[in-house]
Amino acid sequence: MRLWFKVNYFGKRRMKIGSVLVTGANRGLGLEFVRQFLALPTPPEHVISACRNPDGAKDLHDLKNKHKNLSIVKVDLNDTEHLEEAVKEVEATLGNSGLNLLINNAGIASRDNLDTITAEEMMRHFRVNTVGPLMVTKVFLPLLRKAAGSGGEGASINQATVCSISSGVGSIGENDSGGAYAYRTSKAGLNMITKNMSIDLKKDGIIVVSIHPGWLKTDMGGPNATMEADVMAKKIIDLMGTFTSDEFTGKLYHFSGRVMQF
Amino acid sequence: MRLWFKVNYFGKRRMKIGSVLVTGANRGLGLEFVRQFLALPTPPEHVISACRNPDGAKDLHDLKNKHKNLSIVKVDLNDTEHLEEAVKEVEATLGNSGLNLLINNAGIASRDNLDTITAEEMMRHFRVNTVGPLMVTKVFLPLLRKAAGSGGEGASINQATVCSISSGVGSIGENDSGGAYAYRTSKAGLNMITKNMSIDLKKDGIIVVSIHPGWLKTDMGGPNATMEADVMAKKIIDLMGTFTSDEFTGKLYHFSGRVMQF
Repeated sequence: MRLWFKVNYFGKRRMKIGSVLVTGANRGLGLEFVRQFLALPTPPEHVISACRNPDGAKDLHDLKNKHKNLSIVKVDLNDTEHLEEAVKEVEATLGNSGLNLLINNAGIASRDNLDTITAEEMMRHFRVNTVGPLMVTKVFLPLLRKAAGSGGEGASINQATVCSISSGVGSIGENDSGGAYAYRTSKAGLNMITKNMSIDLKKDGIIVVSIHPGWLKTDMGGPNATMEADVMAKKIIDLMGTFTSDEFTGKLYHFSGRVMQF
Repeated sequence: MRLWFKVNYFGKRRMKIGSVLVTGANRGLGLEFVRQFLALPTPPEHVISACRNPDGAKDLHDLKNKHKNLSIVKVDLNDTEHLEEAVKEVEATLGNSGLNLLINNAGIASRDNLDTITAEEMMRHFRVNTVGPLMVTKVFLPLLRKAAGSGGEGASINQATVCSISSGVGSIGENDSGGAYAYRTSKAGLNMITKNMSIDLKKDGIIVVSIHPGWLKTDMGGPNATMEADVMAKKIIDLMGTFTSDEFTGKLYHFSGRVMQF
């Protein structure tokens, strides 16, 4: 009950951010993040949806026709050399303000086991799920630092936060079922990136967290999943609203708010 | 005192293994593992030293001239497609017996920080330090399973064990200093591989562990390191001697025997 109260009280009332960027925003949880941010009582001034192929992102274009505060930018985690172009576009959109919230949501997942796993599949997952969020965060750091320094407060979700959508499946300590080598290892790597950046960016007042979003009825999760993406996007936005000081940084959160083992 | 007693009592008296394979055996800790196994009161019947370039491994050839139970085999973690050839050679060496102990020791380490880290450096470390041990273990599984099934006992170091030389730097939970992105992330990934394989191989009676060897005066560790490789190889062999049941599997051990956080 206490957690529920905390999440709802602080989350719904205290999140007032100027800008958010979501990767993998063309579908699934990413698209729901965009929808839910646009639907907030006090929506961000800038909702920036990033995806691999903006031209094919019909849902985002439909939303953009209705919401002037939505923009679309190309970010391909397989091609991190060209991220500087995305940064320039985002800078032009934000004008004089920084980026308050970066949601590293894009990722891939395939099934494997000890018999079927290949070196190539390991490398492909690591490239997108681990190295991708690291390189995206790196290029947006100047804009995150700008946002962190602008409020005159301590670290909080309303200043600058990097939130990576990880997975409980990437928890080494809570792993009790094996398999899924490529996905598990890439998400464990992502959790290390989160912890490492939380330490390195503490002096800048930037909060860095990983979040486990559960098993969602999306293209990735499939029809047997247990939860709807729109419900989860709301839940996670509420959870993020509770990150009101740097004591929240550097952790892996279950969507319920529970701090998971690494 | 209790741990010291346990390590020395069980370690020195109880480890009686028929065969061990060490990767990265041409120098540093790997070479010392080979030396210390050969120097045991009851040395293994087969000590198999694996390295990238056997022709250039002078120290191993010098040892081979003195020890008939030492063999040298080519294993290149950057080229895991050709591992089957190594397996054939090892099979020919072992004859009818299986492989009792695989020590995934080979690895790389470079320094980086959030400013200098590149996608390529992340991928290079992951390839060698994470994917390498996974693929090496996979190809030697038939020989490890053979050894596990041969003793009629429960899982133990004397049956079949996979011991990956990881690092405390790869512990996400105990990370309090940041930096070293490529090395930390690749070792966190290796710890996930260890945990995952420990679950998947429990039914086969194969123990899988990660070990933190400390900071060693080797080519990798440099001259400022705090410990000598020969002392550490002995310590780790003693520690491995304590793995006498499957309650020891799936953990990250500090060389002192302490179970570290993932």
